[in-house]
Amino acid sequence: MKEQDKTISKADEVLQRMLAKDAFSKWLGLEVDEIGEGFCRLHFQVREDMLNGFGTLHGGVTYAAADSAFAFACNSHGRLSVALSTSMDYLEAGKIGDVLTVEAKEEGLKNKIGVYQIRITNQEGLLLALFKGTSYRTSKEV
Amino acid sequence: MKEQDKTISKADEVLQRMLAKDAFSKWLGLEVDEIGEGFCRLHFQVREDMLNGFGTLHGGVTYAAADSAFAFACNSHGRLSVALSTSMDYLEAGKIGDVLTVEAKEEGLKNKIGVYQIRITNQEGLLLALFKGTSYRTSKEV
Amino acid sequence: MKEQDKTISKADEVLQRMLAKDAFSKWLGLEVDEIGEGFCRLHFQVREDMLNGFGTLHGGVTYAAADSAFAFACNSHGRLSVALSTSMDYLEAGKIGDVLTVEAKEEGLKNKIGVYQIRITNQEGLLLALFKGTSYRTSKEV
Amino acid sequence: MKEQDKTISKADEVLQRMLAKDAFSKWLGLEVDEIGEGFCRLHFQVREDMLNGFGTLHGGVTYAAADSAFAFACNSHGRLSVALSTSMDYLEAGKIGDVLTVEAKEEGLKNKIGVYQIRITNQEGLLLALFKGTSYRTSKEV
Repeated sequence: MKEQDKTISKADEVLQRMLAKDAFSKWLGLEVDEIGEGFCRLHFQVREDMLNGFGTLHGGVTYAAADSAFAFACNSHGRLSVALSTSMDYLEAGKIGDVLTVEAKEEGLKNKIGVYQIRITNQEGLLLALFKGTSYRTSKEV
Repeated sequence: MKEQDKTISKADEVLQRMLAKDAFSKWLGLEVDEIGEGFCRLHFQVREDMLNGFGTLHGGVTYAAADSAFAFACNSHGRLSVALSTSMDYLEAGKIGDVLTVEAKEEGLKNKIGVYQIRITNQEGLLLALFKGTSYRTSKEV
Repeated sequence: MKEQDKTISKADEVLQRMLAKDAFSKWLGLEVDEIGEGFCRLHFQVREDMLNGFGTLHGGVTYAAADSAFAFACNSHGRLSVALSTSMDYLEAGKIGDVLTVEAKEEGLKNKIGVYQIRITNQEGLLLALFKGTSYRTSKEV
Repeated sequence: MKEQDKTISKADEVLQRMLAKDAFSKWLGLEVDEIGEGFCRLHFQVREDMLNGFGTLHGGVTYAAADSAFAFACNSHGRLSVALSTSMDYLEAGKIGDVLTVEAKEEGLKNKIGVYQIRITNQEGLLLALFKGTSYRTSKEV
């Protein structure tokens, strides 16, 4: 087995351990398409029970899916990491039936801190929202 | 009927119209305790299906409850308003059974833009998270 | 000397040590009006060399004054602290001659992390901007 | 003259009009290397009067340079645009003598709103900070 394969396996192992207990990500219907060190891409479909009072996707659902991708990406190195602070910019509203892709990418990694950007796009590649997150890396293992 | 009562009634009327269709806020179990122009306080209880892979409240759920309070507060003036950009700071993790209070307060209001701060505290008054949101006020009525 | 006085003296001692070398805060003309543990209030006057291409106060100057107040407040406990992530919302533009008050308040303090809100108002009490900052507390002394 | 050249000329014309009066960007010593619709790259050198109380680059200066690049990029279409809300993540401290590159890129553009990401790197390509900004596009021309 090559070095890179081992790394991906480790990130994948951490993901499986997290997903096994992640009840809310299950409710969101998140499907992880790719995982690696500092990276995660997943998708989910917008359902009726995810809508807000204006009949569009609730911003909290868009955020939550991004927050899960962020968590999977920042824990992928094996060190237990938690969200410290995040920001979200909304460009377009999601609609029922949309299949949204959520891609988390590590922008910087230090001993105690990691910074990630997450893009949420729809099935036509339209950017719905931009999420930025800072994680705190504890000394514990996941 | 006094002037203030009419104002509160209007904010309340907008809230009822929004809540009637807000499927995700229903799923969150949000109960609005107080509504007024530029203000909203609500609470909800942390359930098992709201937890993340570490067994604590998923940050996306905390955010979503704050986002709903933000939406109720910024639409309370009757002008259809949408979230443009938000930020969230996490201080403590929520736990199963916790009853969380979410309070949204208007910090500034201009013709096109509103700024709100939302505090999320638990049943002991401990601050779990701080949310800040900027809304864009369209020219449509809710 | 009472217990509280000693605390204020310590925060003040840290402030003096920081101010002594803070060249950019000096350029900004920041005058600290009050300092305490987790708190700082300062003011400065908008000069011509602080303006942007539209003839109003450059948003980076408003931010920088808030960032200094944040630094003074989060280091006031004596532990060397650095900014991790911040957010800023702009409501009104500052104008030449304005005297701006910048008040930093601690919202939460944990072993490794602190969260602060900073309000920037003008001489008429009008809110110009809202800043939120998260600091990382190292184990070193200031 | 080709179509693209005309576009670049327009963005460049707006930039020149903004720079002519931008006193604070002048103080920062900003040199614009490239400008286009929705894009700006500039650099500046860290001077002694830009340092904070710990002898490193004041976070407000890093932010201000990013804020200028953001302003040049979001006004490049010719519509007068102002910053609504921004966020900043700090990864590494700038040092005296460093030559910092600031690159602003448009992530989304709508009728009233634009979203931009700005990366600040040093002469070795190390990422110092990440800035995200949302602008409000007025109906006036620059």
